[in-house]
Amino acid sequence: MPEPRARIETSDIARPPAALVEAIRAMGAATASSTLHHMAGITNSHIVGPTARSPGHCVAGPALTLQFMPKREDLYSAAEYEDPELQLHRHVLYHTRPGDIVVVDARGDMRSGVFGEMMLTYFKGRGGGGLVIDGCLRDWPNVQGLEIPCWIRGVTPNFHTQTELMPFAVNGPIACGGCLVMPGDIIVADDDGAVVVPAALAERLIAEAHVAHGWEGFSRERLAAGGDLRRYYPLTDAARPEYDDWLARRDAAGGSTE
Amino acid sequence: MPEPRARIETSDIARPPAALVEAIRAMGAATASSTLHHMAGITNSHIVGPTARSPGHCVAGPALTLQFMPKREDLYSAAEYEDPELQLHRHVLYHTRPGDIVVVDARGDMRSGVFGEMMLTYFKGRGGGGLVIDGCLRDWPNVQGLEIPCWIRGVTPNFHTQTELMPFAVNGPIACGGCLVMPGDIIVADDDGAVVVPAALAERLIAEAHVAHGWEGFSRERLAAGGDLRRYYPLTDAARPEYDDWLARRDAAGGSTE
Amino acid sequence: MPEPRARIETSDIARPPAALVEAIRAMGAATASSTLHHMAGITNSHIVGPTARSPGHCVAGPALTLQFMPKREDLYSAAEYEDPELQLHRHVLYHTRPGDIVVVDARGDMRSGVFGEMMLTYFKGRGGGGLVIDGCLRDWPNVQGLEIPCWIRGVTPNFHTQTELMPFAVNGPIACGGCLVMPGDIIVADDDGAVVVPAALAERLIAEAHVAHGWEGFSRERLAAGGDLRRYYPLTDAARPEYDDWLARRDAAGGSTE
Amino acid sequence: MPEPRARIETSDIARPPAALVEAIRAMGAATASSTLHHMAGITNSHIVGPTARSPGHCVAGPALTLQFMPKREDLYSAAEYEDPELQLHRHVLYHTRPGDIVVVDARGDMRSGVFGEMMLTYFKGRGGGGLVIDGCLRDWPNVQGLEIPCWIRGVTPNFHTQTELMPFAVNGPIACGGCLVMPGDIIVADDDGAVVVPAALAERLIAEAHVAHGWEGFSRERLAAGGDLRRYYPLTDAARPEYDDWLARRDAAGGSTE
Amino acid sequence: MPEPRARIETSDIARPPAALVEAIRAMGAATASSTLHHMAGITNSHIVGPTARSPGHCVAGPALTLQFMPKREDLYSAAEYEDPELQLHRHVLYHTRPGDIVVVDARGDMRSGVFGEMMLTYFKGRGGGGLVIDGCLRDWPNVQGLEIPCWIRGVTPNFHTQTELMPFAVNGPIACGGCLVMPGDIIVADDDGAVVVPAALAERLIAEAHVAHGWEGFSRERLAAGGDLRRYYPLTDAARPEYDDWLARRDAAGGSTE
Amino acid sequence: MPEPRARIETSDIARPPAALVEAIRAMGAATASSTLHHMAGITNSHIVGPTARSPGHCVAGPALTLQFMPKREDLYSAAEYEDPELQLHRHVLYHTRPGDIVVVDARGDMRSGVFGEMMLTYFKGRGGGGLVIDGCLRDWPNVQGLEIPCWIRGVTPNFHTQTELMPFAVNGPIACGGCLVMPGDIIVADDDGAVVVPAALAERLIAEAHVAHGWEGFSRERLAAGGDLRRYYPLTDAARPEYDDWLARRDAAGGSTE
Repeated sequence: MPEPRARIETSDIARPPAALVEAIRAMGAATASSTLHHMAGITNSHIVGPTARSPGHCVAGPALTLQFMPKREDLYSAAEYEDPELQLHRHVLYHTRPGDIVVVDARGDMRSGVFGEMMLTYFKGRGGGGLVIDGCLRDWPNVQGLEIPCWIRGVTPNFHTQTELMPFAVNGPIACGGCLVMPGDIIVADDDGAVVVPAALAERLIAEAHVAHGWEGFSRERLAAGGDLRRYYPLTDAARPEYDDWLARRDAAGGSTE
Repeated sequence: MPEPRARIETSDIARPPAALVEAIRAMGAATASSTLHHMAGITNSHIVGPTARSPGHCVAGPALTLQFMPKREDLYSAAEYEDPELQLHRHVLYHTRPGDIVVVDARGDMRSGVFGEMMLTYFKGRGGGGLVIDGCLRDWPNVQGLEIPCWIRGVTPNFHTQTELMPFAVNGPIACGGCLVMPGDIIVADDDGAVVVPAALAERLIAEAHVAHGWEGFSRERLAAGGDLRRYYPLTDAARPEYDDWLARRDAAGGSTE
Repeated sequence: MPEPRARIETSDIARPPAALVEAIRAMGAATASSTLHHMAGITNSHIVGPTARSPGHCVAGPALTLQFMPKREDLYSAAEYEDPELQLHRHVLYHTRPGDIVVVDARGDMRSGVFGEMMLTYFKGRGGGGLVIDGCLRDWPNVQGLEIPCWIRGVTPNFHTQTELMPFAVNGPIACGGCLVMPGDIIVADDDGAVVVPAALAERLIAEAHVAHGWEGFSRERLAAGGDLRRYYPLTDAARPEYDDWLARRDAAGGSTE
Repeated sequence: MPEPRARIETSDIARPPAALVEAIRAMGAATASSTLHHMAGITNSHIVGPTARSPGHCVAGPALTLQFMPKREDLYSAAEYEDPELQLHRHVLYHTRPGDIVVVDARGDMRSGVFGEMMLTYFKGRGGGGLVIDGCLRDWPNVQGLEIPCWIRGVTPNFHTQTELMPFAVNGPIACGGCLVMPGDIIVADDDGAVVVPAALAERLIAEAHVAHGWEGFSRERLAAGGDLRRYYPLTDAARPEYDDWLARRDAAGGSTE
Repeated sequence: MPEPRARIETSDIARPPAALVEAIRAMGAATASSTLHHMAGITNSHIVGPTARSPGHCVAGPALTLQFMPKREDLYSAAEYEDPELQLHRHVLYHTRPGDIVVVDARGDMRSGVFGEMMLTYFKGRGGGGLVIDGCLRDWPNVQGLEIPCWIRGVTPNFHTQTELMPFAVNGPIACGGCLVMPGDIIVADDDGAVVVPAALAERLIAEAHVAHGWEGFSRERLAAGGDLRRYYPLTDAARPEYDDWLARRDAAGGSTE
Repeated sequence: MPEPRARIETSDIARPPAALVEAIRAMGAATASSTLHHMAGITNSHIVGPTARSPGHCVAGPALTLQFMPKREDLYSAAEYEDPELQLHRHVLYHTRPGDIVVVDARGDMRSGVFGEMMLTYFKGRGGGGLVIDGCLRDWPNVQGLEIPCWIRGVTPNFHTQTELMPFAVNGPIACGGCLVMPGDIIVADDDGAVVVPAALAERLIAEAHVAHGWEGFSRERLAAGGDLRRYYPLTDAARPEYDDWLARRDAAGGSTE
């Protein structure tokens, strides 16, 4: 591997239909995770480690992937800083289309900042949907204003190749937070964390995802008022007349409680 | 142990008088911890690991306890999802009385969400005072609106038996964050974290807890203005005339500085 | 070491000129870290572990240092609580001058709260600039109101010698978060974390620190609008006429974009 | 829990038939673990952490269990050293019958030595079969001469309640090295480590355990001589005549190769 | 990735000349590591984690690589056990030539045994030189008799896909113990551990490796007899006449001290 | 700190009388640790982490100390390799007197080998008693032949300043394996591990150390033969006649059982 990056060419990914991605976003991370378990025996689809840096986002999108490896001085060229095109981590961003999510295996490292402000301004400008990094960002005082949804381990002032890592591959399979992520898999992330939905399972997931039972709004109201969990969740036959009554009143009032 | 949960019966706890619990809440976690050390040689009463999920709460209450164990497929029944009454983690919630705090040994696991929205709506409806979990919650986008004071390690989209844990016992002794918690012990928790107050020591703790010295308001004011720590904290004899003068002025002004 | 603290005398530090400290504050942690690497081969100047407790601060100042060691009951005197002057951790605060930053090696311990409210009121009153602690603070419900910029690992209700640590030395060399900190080194800390700037390198650092290129404001604007990273960052010759045009329009408008 | 150990009574365990235990010992830890997985879906029966202190042992026996908890000074009586009968860890040994294996949850602690020489001389004298401790032994210079098969994390000069633990329960359910161990479960341990065989599954395990195929001796011989893994493991139809020939020669020689 | 292993084809590696490998074996791990640092700035070539399972081996050979990834139930086929050719970990062994070293990224997992007895009998039969696994072997009671030099983290009774891993790629780049290993790199391993020698640097490494100075035998003898480190290591001019005398005596005795 | 090592002068230590050191060696690590706890409230005197590299040694001696710190490229001079006298880790060895034990805080690092063969040949030649290192040695294939008793975390081919550490101070206070070690403290180490005996407590320790009760030999014999722990350990009044009889027989036989 004498000239590993003489002229860097990286592959794009196949993207699923937008409607499918949106349906997964709408179910959220918790429903995606539990349904993948129930329907396909997937034990853990939660990318553990990276957490929501700012609360309240819920995004879904296809995964562009970037893999870091332990730095090896014979393979990491200082020329990166003479010719920016040799910086491999730029290349994953070049593939960004609206809604894409960049997923990075930065090996859990707390001393390497994968991207900084200018890179992420570009990502934002290209419509990037979010970042999931098993590692850190850099330049957070400037980056946070970009309001890109981020699931990361933390932040650091160090740049990405400053200590022990180097970018190694783009849009290949990676491990991230204990999960295997294939390029083009769908990531859904909210305040619970980020979940990997295998692309091939996405349609079935949507079909099988838990549909809120009609009585859940009723039950939530009763539970919030001190009602008995055994009676209202799941709804028992004993409570059904009460529910029917509640429905009738709601309809009479011309509205919906949820 | 062939039929471990054929018909689940769990014990309630003995609860201390409300006034006693309130007195402990009023002293806060830091005073409880240091006084337990000084008066009873208790090295560490701080449940280390779970931290305040939302700042600004200060609660105290008797501990309902839930213990998780490593999952064993021969003891964990898939029938849990056919008969909700076989789900042991529901049972700890059945005991909830206003102000109770549910304390969970979830073995520090970051991939198991102990409770989700519907369970916690019930807990809230019953007047539950708070949660201390050496592990995670699930469904945070919906749970946070319930505004239940929570001391947890994090959140996850996974459900409680999805990966390597199963609920095992209710209202028995547990270890949580490096502390032994007996059911009925008093938990006091604020932004500093959660502290275990052994029920039998509660009265003595209240009697011996640090009472703020009268001069602390004076000293705080002086220190904030750049005064010398050696002179004002603790208050020295040299500074006492100054303090007397301060008191006199305050009284003359008909008020209190604190 | 029979009477280790019979009469505690600790040394003050040499402080760099204020203008120099301010110049380092103005560049921020990320620029300090990367420039130290590029100009002096310093692999890692980031104090890893302590993170910004409250967002939005950016401070710089000379380091007062406090070292904790594993507690040894034959060297740790209970008399500390009879004679406050025997409490070594007070002494580091006595040296506080406006802008100073107290850096503490508390060995990453999560069960020892290095300082509480009264100590920190004094620190604030003396003009202390900030705290960097590889460990915890105590009394956070009261401390946070002081609005001292803090980079810490967490908080705990326990006091500083309650479990396994004791303060051991003031204004000597310490390790903090994987970095060697010499007393008098300059700490610069913001939301990216805290960075150690060796005092002897400070002037050269300021001279060599990355000065934002004139075109960065232009490029940021283009990138935010979806422009090509390859064209605008760094600015290519191909894009330079576009930049010149942008400059001319800006000047005509009598303003600046940054 | 005012007088937790005023008069300690602990339960004995139910022991499986000796022949059953011996059959499990004969299969060894690796076969037990993989068969439990294949036949009962038990993901992990390996007690991870404790390793064979001295190589070459293979033991099986019913589990006597001892649970440690974080020490709480209000529940741990210094009187232990006045009245040895108050030392709970002695009581698990009182139940020892020949071949029993004492399994201890010492919480992975590296600073607490669960047993020392005199205790273990007694255990040996009673015919104890072995020890599995998620933690340490003490007094190893003397203990090793007893030649008790031990799976432990390490050794320490400290005694069992010297730092942060206290014994809490005997012959109850425990977690050990990430596995749930019920009292009376069968432990099988060799150089690969210790495995928990649920008592109720023991008979079925023996029935379903991998029986070495007759051709394995033949295949091993061929593989050791450089034969092709694809041809000999598992044995292919193509290689079967060769095997038949090998069998015939062996029989002619009046012996067995294994 | 619907049919990931329908028909598995894996690439072989390019192997360096045997004489070159032998020269690296002769220098040992310590000299290889320090020389790579001095001559090529390679900070760390030590595969940290795996340690010598049995002492006294020193081997070198080209790296065959095997990568594990977190198991994903949609990609891991249970059919592996119906058709052994679908078991990817077998395929790395198929490439074995005499002296080859199989290097495995098993993600540091302590609950997955990468290979067992039959696989390793084949490896031995093919002349395999050794194993370096960031993880565990299985079946150690039988494997150890094969006397294959092994650098591993430990052993377990579990098989390789029993818990959370699955084999994913053969003879691609892997991370192992914090080092990047490219297929065909030369591994040199002894009691100090395993070192990665980049294939392209091997010749230069041999040329530049520390050649023991002629006087080292003399100095070692003097130091062992209590001589002064400052005088004898490195050899000073002051000690040179003494060394000349020692040489003369040795020659007169017709022998060599080393 | 412009010229930190222009001319290195390091202090020697005060050594306790040889007879006192020998008495501590004779009691061993376990008795030293438990007695320090009982007599002086020292919670933990066990240096946790470093373990006996080769079994069967028991040594005691005064501590020479060496402290490593995180490497800082502005303070670590490459000139070390031009002028060996600038290598600080040599200097701790210069102080070696027969029986001394070198204790090193190498920060638990697994990638830095503190000493190699030539250094340790010198240490051996000077009569050095042993090494306790919270870190690693290098060059083990050659070092082990020196038969120096070592308590270490492991071995590595890397040299001491190759990755992230640099030697920083000699014969000052250090933390090692969670214990504070003052230069001149007495270290006693055997297969249980290494224990720090504060110099000032040594005499009292010897006076108060557990003296084996006369009946222990008798009790051990009975326990080994299956006797009741409750009867024989500690020796009960009920068993005393039996013990007297045993003593009489032993005396009649003209010998001792221990």
